[in-house]
Amino acid sequence: MDKLQVVKIGGNVIENEKTLFDFLKDFSSIKGRKILIHGGGKEATRMAKKFGVPIDLIAGRRVTDAKNLEIITMVYGGKLNKNIVAQLQAFGCNSLGLCGADGNSILAKKRPVKPIDFGFVGDLKEVNHSLLNLLLKEGISPVFCALSHDGKGQLLNTNADTIAATLAAAMTSHYEVHLNYCFEKNGVLKNINEDDSFIPSINKEEFKKLKSDGIIHNGMLPKLQNCFTALEKGVKLIKIGNPKMISETGIYTQITN
Amino acid sequence: MDKLQVVKIGGNVIENEKTLFDFLKDFSSIKGRKILIHGGGKEATRMAKKFGVPIDLIAGRRVTDAKNLEIITMVYGGKLNKNIVAQLQAFGCNSLGLCGADGNSILAKKRPVKPIDFGFVGDLKEVNHSLLNLLLKEGISPVFCALSHDGKGQLLNTNADTIAATLAAAMTSHYEVHLNYCFEKNGVLKNINEDDSFIPSINKEEFKKLKSDGIIHNGMLPKLQNCFTALEKGVKLIKIGNPKMISETGIYTQITN
Repeated sequence: MDKLQVVKIGGNVIENEKTLFDFLKDFSSIKGRKILIHGGGKEATRMAKKFGVPIDLIAGRRVTDAKNLEIITMVYGGKLNKNIVAQLQAFGCNSLGLCGADGNSILAKKRPVKPIDFGFVGDLKEVNHSLLNLLLKEGISPVFCALSHDGKGQLLNTNADTIAATLAAAMTSHYEVHLNYCFEKNGVLKNINEDDSFIPSINKEEFKKLKSDGIIHNGMLPKLQNCFTALEKGVKLIKIGNPKMISETGIYTQITN
Repeated sequence: MDKLQVVKIGGNVIENEKTLFDFLKDFSSIKGRKILIHGGGKEATRMAKKFGVPIDLIAGRRVTDAKNLEIITMVYGGKLNKNIVAQLQAFGCNSLGLCGADGNSILAKKRPVKPIDFGFVGDLKEVNHSLLNLLLKEGISPVFCALSHDGKGQLLNTNADTIAATLAAAMTSHYEVHLNYCFEKNGVLKNINEDDSFIPSINKEEFKKLKSDGIIHNGMLPKLQNCFTALEKGVKLIKIGNPKMISETGIYTQITN
């Protein structure tokens, strides 16, 4: 089975022009099949402020009302996605930007309004792996922004980490899939303030202990839960670390069964 | 040879929610292969105003500076393109939104800064007809916004009429191509204020006369010039008229050799 690298880059990698440029260069030099998934929450927040659109948070999580969805669609699907693709083309990486509505690539269901109404947020239902495989076989790297659709005309804001894990799992029917979460840290850290404190590898048992000891918390919890689900669904190798890890020189935490 | 309908919709069709909805429904019901190209200048102008970004015009034509390009990328590539695709999916039309950087589908060259510097505006060089044919053969309708790229990382604002004509011509190697320009009028009008004054058909000779008589002017001139170029390059049938014409009930002007 051919290898497929699924790479997700987070907000802080995108924010910094130099970091993004270096990352895209490294991504382009990955040999073989690859898919990129990007976030962009910080840029969307900045744009919302420019527009005077208030950002509503419930329990620390963003509510996507119609105006915020409009901004997210412009920033994720337009500004970030199209500029990333144009830059990858310049590096000789033939890529093609997609949101979940494009080619019906990511179908989701609007999250129920109870207990909390998060607005236009989607929970994933299905990834169109045949379309992605068709593009990959043509030498094209799909580049996803964090938008799905409900098949009834509605775009939905969707967590990019979850898209990456679900997509990686869906592609295991065609490839040996490696999933890479790139962010501004060197991996899962024992101490958030010490970049050297990254944990080289975490399995499910260790995860439970790290969680109960309060070492892993907040945003890292769902990311790791996504990883274990992806492993169960057949993803072969999962790394969390800084963007340099995709060029094999970086530091990372490997997630194992 | 199979037929391919290439349809371009202009600003006023997109502007009006009801008109756009009806058009997309009609577009979805076109049997066989189809490609959509959309503009969006009015929405971009509105967004620029919201952002307080000045719009510079030279000789009545818009200059695309970096800030305007950012807005255009968000509006054309994000808001309009992704919502159109999501709506088409709801109508059962499997579509996929593209800008020219996606899959290297439309390569252009930045227009020379002399005699007039129009900024980040692209003149078309090449359409990747193989990629479009690949998507069409999968039953996917490409949906283009009016953005190309230079292959060196730069997105470029590009006239949607010209994209439609160039793309139609490029696809003649695979299909019998019909090109449709849909806008708010019933066709090429003898009197711009009388919607009934549309001219049923115009050939090259008649065009010259209409031009020298001052009946055709402004924006209609380059549109018609695009049409005659497309005819010369093998496009089979060209219509200019209201959006209803794609469901075969509309009124239009046919452009002939």
